[in-house]
Amino acid sequence: MEDWSDCLDVAVQIALRAGQVVQSAVKQEKQVSSKSTPTDLVTEADHQVEELIISTLREKYPSHRFIGEESSAAGVKCELTDHPTWIIDPIDGTCNFVHSFPMVAVSIGFAVRKELELGVIYHCFDGTLYTARRGHGAFCNGVRLQVSKEKDVSKALILTEIGAKRDPATLDIFLGNMKKMLSAPTHGVRIIGSSTLALSHIASGAAEAYYQYGLHCWDIAAAAVIIREAGGHVMDTTGGPLDLMSRRVVAAGTRQIADYVVKQLQPINYGRDDTDP
Amino acid sequence: MEDWSDCLDVAVQIALRAGQVVQSAVKQEKQVSSKSTPTDLVTEADHQVEELIISTLREKYPSHRFIGEESSAAGVKCELTDHPTWIIDPIDGTCNFVHSFPMVAVSIGFAVRKELELGVIYHCFDGTLYTARRGHGAFCNGVRLQVSKEKDVSKALILTEIGAKRDPATLDIFLGNMKKMLSAPTHGVRIIGSSTLALSHIASGAAEAYYQYGLHCWDIAAAAVIIREAGGHVMDTTGGPLDLMSRRVVAAGTRQIADYVVKQLQPINYGRDDTDP
Repeated sequence: MEDWSDCLDVAVQIALRAGQVVQSAVKQEKQVSSKSTPTDLVTEADHQVEELIISTLREKYPSHRFIGEESSAAGVKCELTDHPTWIIDPIDGTCNFVHSFPMVAVSIGFAVRKELELGVIYHCFDGTLYTARRGHGAFCNGVRLQVSKEKDVSKALILTEIGAKRDPATLDIFLGNMKKMLSAPTHGVRIIGSSTLALSHIASGAAEAYYQYGLHCWDIAAAAVIIREAGGHVMDTTGGPLDLMSRRVVAAGTRQIADYVVKQLQPINYGRDDTDP
Repeated sequence: MEDWSDCLDVAVQIALRAGQVVQSAVKQEKQVSSKSTPTDLVTEADHQVEELIISTLREKYPSHRFIGEESSAAGVKCELTDHPTWIIDPIDGTCNFVHSFPMVAVSIGFAVRKELELGVIYHCFDGTLYTARRGHGAFCNGVRLQVSKEKDVSKALILTEIGAKRDPATLDIFLGNMKKMLSAPTHGVRIIGSSTLALSHIASGAAEAYYQYGLHCWDIAAAAVIIREAGGHVMDTTGGPLDLMSRRVVAAGTRQIADYVVKQLQPINYGRDDTDP
């Protein structure tokens, strides 16, 4: 049985290279376009970095398959099969990237037989590198990660992201969910503009829970392995098993905090990643 | 006429020293208590760092006065006179600090004849140092800062903070304001848990506007000088001149974006810093 440690080493090297490209691109004029909504942004750099990551991995692993944010936006079917599959977000936090707001990451996940095997997340501004391989622990710059053990929601810091839909009905549900989180009361809610970096904070124990409707499989794939290997929980917003293609997630350090969050949430329907548009 | 450049040098040295103390304290077990509300947190480190900053400055400038977050919480009157006065937040983002959520800053401002003369903000996690002296520009790690010149609110990234009050009526106004900012539509809203670091992002041009009800003079003092020296606007939430003691602020790169934000906001009353409790 393969242990995929070679794949992890390769993914780390590629994430570091991609991160350097992002760092250089931050300082340059950006060509910005929008995708699903006027607030769902994409830049030339997103395409370039995804192409760099996929072409390098394809050369190394010609039989592997790929799911990438920008390939999917360009019409490549987003399908998770039993084949070894890389799941890539070249620039997570594209809106932050456009503004040079310093929370932007490269995220590379890898699944085999639909099981997430490894994850690499590189914070392009501060150089933090999160890595994990299933069964072998999670690390931040080589130091072992451990989720928060807090069970009391009144001492929890909760993270979320807004999602691309900004119609009044969606915003009302989003803000209603946020009100419930603030009213618990919790210590607070943070919105940093990068799902993968927010999820990394769950892995490192810097926050107790994350929830979101409207993210994609490439936002979750790497982070899910890292959080689980740090001792945390990643699940569907109903409390059931994570469905990577469902565009929704709850992650938490403890099952108690996860259960609390799950009970509060009113759902927002963003469809699925694996259905044709 | 004094140019206060000596004071800026001293403030930078003290901020760096204070930042080192905060960095060490992050890794240790924290003694957490609450102040005005269960979510208004304070730790032993807040007191120690404020004592370090004030005692060092007092030794150097025995005639100067001091306004500090923890001294004020302990009952020292928060009063801005014509005397040279240091305005200090030893750990801005105390809730983040408690969670080791990596957005925490030391903020040191300085006013003479009620005019803000200089500001120093040190990001304790990534080591970014923001400095400014009135009439002499604003800098980040020595590189000159320039606010965003964006005038189109639909391309704006907006920052805010939640404030300590979590009663349903306050939350409804807070979330209503956030809905207006998201509905513009803007590029998005971010909540990072540190007012001074959020305001620093206005100075660096990484976001277009910041608004908040419920912050304090020690959250604004240093940042206001840095934003103005980077070419930006800092004002009251009504659009009038900033009242440092009013516990409310709007800051923006351009007057156009500031005016838009001002027109949207429904006020939240947090009282004043300079009235007895």
